[in-house]
Amino acid sequence: MSSSPESTPGRSPAAVTVIGLGPMGRALAGAFVDAGVRTTVWNRTPGRDRELVERGAIGAASAAEAVAASPLTVVSLVNYDATDAVLRQDAVTAALKGRTLVNLTADTPDRARDTGRWAGEHGIRYLDGAVMTPTPTIGTPHAVLLLSGDEELYGENRDVLGALGGTHTHLGEDIGRAAAYDIALLDVFWTSMTGYMHALALARAEGVSPRELAPFAQGIGAILPALFQETAEDIEDGGYSGEGNPLTSAVSTMAHVVHAAEAHGIDTGVMRAAEGLARRTVALGHGADGFSRIAEVLTRR
Amino acid sequence: MSSSPESTPGRSPAAVTVIGLGPMGRALAGAFVDAGVRTTVWNRTPGRDRELVERGAIGAASAAEAVAASPLTVVSLVNYDATDAVLRQDAVTAALKGRTLVNLTADTPDRARDTGRWAGEHGIRYLDGAVMTPTPTIGTPHAVLLLSGDEELYGENRDVLGALGGTHTHLGEDIGRAAAYDIALLDVFWTSMTGYMHALALARAEGVSPRELAPFAQGIGAILPALFQETAEDIEDGGYSGEGNPLTSAVSTMAHVVHAAEAHGIDTGVMRAAEGLARRTVALGHGADGFSRIAEVLTRR
Ligand SMILES: NC(=O)c1ccc[n+]([C@@H]2O[C@H](COP(=O)([O-])OP(=O)(O)OC[C@H]3O[C@@H](n4cnc5c(N)ncnc54)[C@H](OP(=O)(O)O)[C@@H]3O)[C@@H](O)[C@H]2O)c1
Ligand SMILES: NC(=O)c1ccc[n+]([C@@H]2O[C@H](COP(=O)([O-])OP(=O)(O)OC[C@H]3O[C@@H](n4cnc5c(N)ncnc54)[C@H](OP(=O)(O)O)[C@@H]3O)[C@@H](O)[C@H]2O)c1
Repeated sequence: MSSSPESTPGRSPAAVTVIGLGPMGRALAGAFVDAGVRTTVWNRTPGRDRELVERGAIGAASAAEAVAASPLTVVSLVNYDATDAVLRQDAVTAALKGRTLVNLTADTPDRARDTGRWAGEHGIRYLDGAVMTPTPTIGTPHAVLLLSGDEELYGENRDVLGALGGTHTHLGEDIGRAAAYDIALLDVFWTSMTGYMHALALARAEGVSPRELAPFAQGIGAILPALFQETAEDIEDGGYSGEGNPLTSAVSTMAHVVHAAEAHGIDTGVMRAAEGLARRTVALGHGADGFSRIAEVLTRR
Repeated sequence: MSSSPESTPGRSPAAVTVIGLGPMGRALAGAFVDAGVRTTVWNRTPGRDRELVERGAIGAASAAEAVAASPLTVVSLVNYDATDAVLRQDAVTAALKGRTLVNLTADTPDRARDTGRWAGEHGIRYLDGAVMTPTPTIGTPHAVLLLSGDEELYGENRDVLGALGGTHTHLGEDIGRAAAYDIALLDVFWTSMTGYMHALALARAEGVSPRELAPFAQGIGAILPALFQETAEDIEDGGYSGEGNPLTSAVSTMAHVVHAAEAHGIDTGVMRAAEGLARRTVALGHGADGFSRIAEVLTRR
């Protein structure tokens, strides 16, 4: 971990405040505590800090007090409405002046940029970020964090943020860039998870238990990373080849899923919407193209 | 590969017919040819057999002639409407009598069971199956095939089907079982791929290129297999714990995806449907539960 501010000027001092003690905020604060960083915590609903305080964190009585306790504040709340509700109180904004704020709350790029503007107006040094991995990864090599904003500020806080473990990527100075990656990655994550929930429900209706389906679903999951890479290259290069698997074939199997689910009375809204996109793409003359053509059609204005 | 029928009685003779020469049928026939199996091929639209014939396959003039050439016929067509159109012609049905039919076409469990009944009525030995991996995996250790139907018949044809490579799983005697797994797995596969297409479109609108997003999307893909296993166990055990990530938090990030996409004029039908399911689950009182609760809600009647 980083050494004390006195001994290594220019490095972030090993003291941090964590605002927000939901599952993610608790994991973040816990990793700072474990790394020996002096950690002050605050949460809207009291009592969420109990376990952290037992482990050595300092519980603050208010958000303003929490922010004033450290040169760096890390925020992890449900969204930027919550972030604004906490940070845009006069006492908190005043306490943040001249300090560093790293907001790891998920929201849209627009909200991140708006917060960047607000921070600039109030002399707050601001980095925006996103956590891409579940809470158990925090403090381990499996954590993935995305950050954007001023390069030098990122460099200054690198050491102390290192306590969160894993891979941190600075995506550039555009303050909205981490959120842009975040929403795109949440898009594929929650859509995939919803597909899996539906698959488990459909399998169950067919007499196949979750544990029976899971190993094969893992097999499907295992082929996705390579397909994600290939498809991205195909789209960027404008290939859209359906040689190995034409869109018409995909549409046909999507329709089977819809029919089978409806026969069991299972909601098919998600697959119907997906099938609709695919059919629209076929109707536009791309039936012999690959599935990747859908991404191009989605970006048409 | 299997030896000749004369030398090893009881084993399937190394001769096969492949009906359907789309990308998958061509890959299947190619793997049989490469394994030294005497391979007869037929496709509705002529000319698709050219490359295979150059490699040693025998092109048949009609489906009936193709079926008559081998003790085992493997079918790979777009769906069971196509399968019925080809196989339920009198000459073809007659030629299949006493022979083995392995239908690797994707469709619903009901259609597989219907074909099983029809096969039984016509003295056709029938296995239903599904290919779970893309064409380049066929004939390699990466192929995944699911089969269902009579156990002994599966055993008899195991050797010759082994030419297709990879892992073959016999899921039991219920002829519809392979299709049940298949539609559930296609459900998660196409939903995930649609989510990824949408993510790439959204990223592009935010100035993030497909190649820039891909490595991080691969990271998301890489965490899915373990999550699929965990979630299946959680659902089967009725846990639905939201301790690490409550549904209310997921819903909030799903809404960000919708807002950001709509701000760019990108269709949000899929994520809106997914968000709707999640919100309905929250409204039913499960906001503090995990995402897995959605699978349970989907199965309610
Ligand atoms: N959990 C994960 O696996 C995971 C993974 C990656 C990223 N993330 C992101 O991390 C962030 C935090 O997530 P989480 O899992 O900890 O749970 P969450 O439910 O998204 O957020 C809970 C936190 O938000 C606070 N909050 C909500 N509304 C508020 C308001 N109006 N004013 C003040 N505070 C408010 C809660 O305070 P109270 O206790 O007072 O309600 C609590 O501290 C989210 O942006 C999430 O997307 C989470
Ligand atoms: N490609 C893959 O990566 C993949 C992966 C796993 C499973 N599968 C499954 O494998 C099967 C075959 O897929 P595919 O990729 O080869 O392409 P496909 O487009 O699904 O099927 C094409 C084949 O279906 C035939 N066909 C369509 N309508 C017909 C009809 N009415 N009568 C007779 N034949 C008809 C085509 O004949 P014509 O040439 O005359 O049109 C062609 O032989 C599908 O069930 C698919 O879901 C494919």
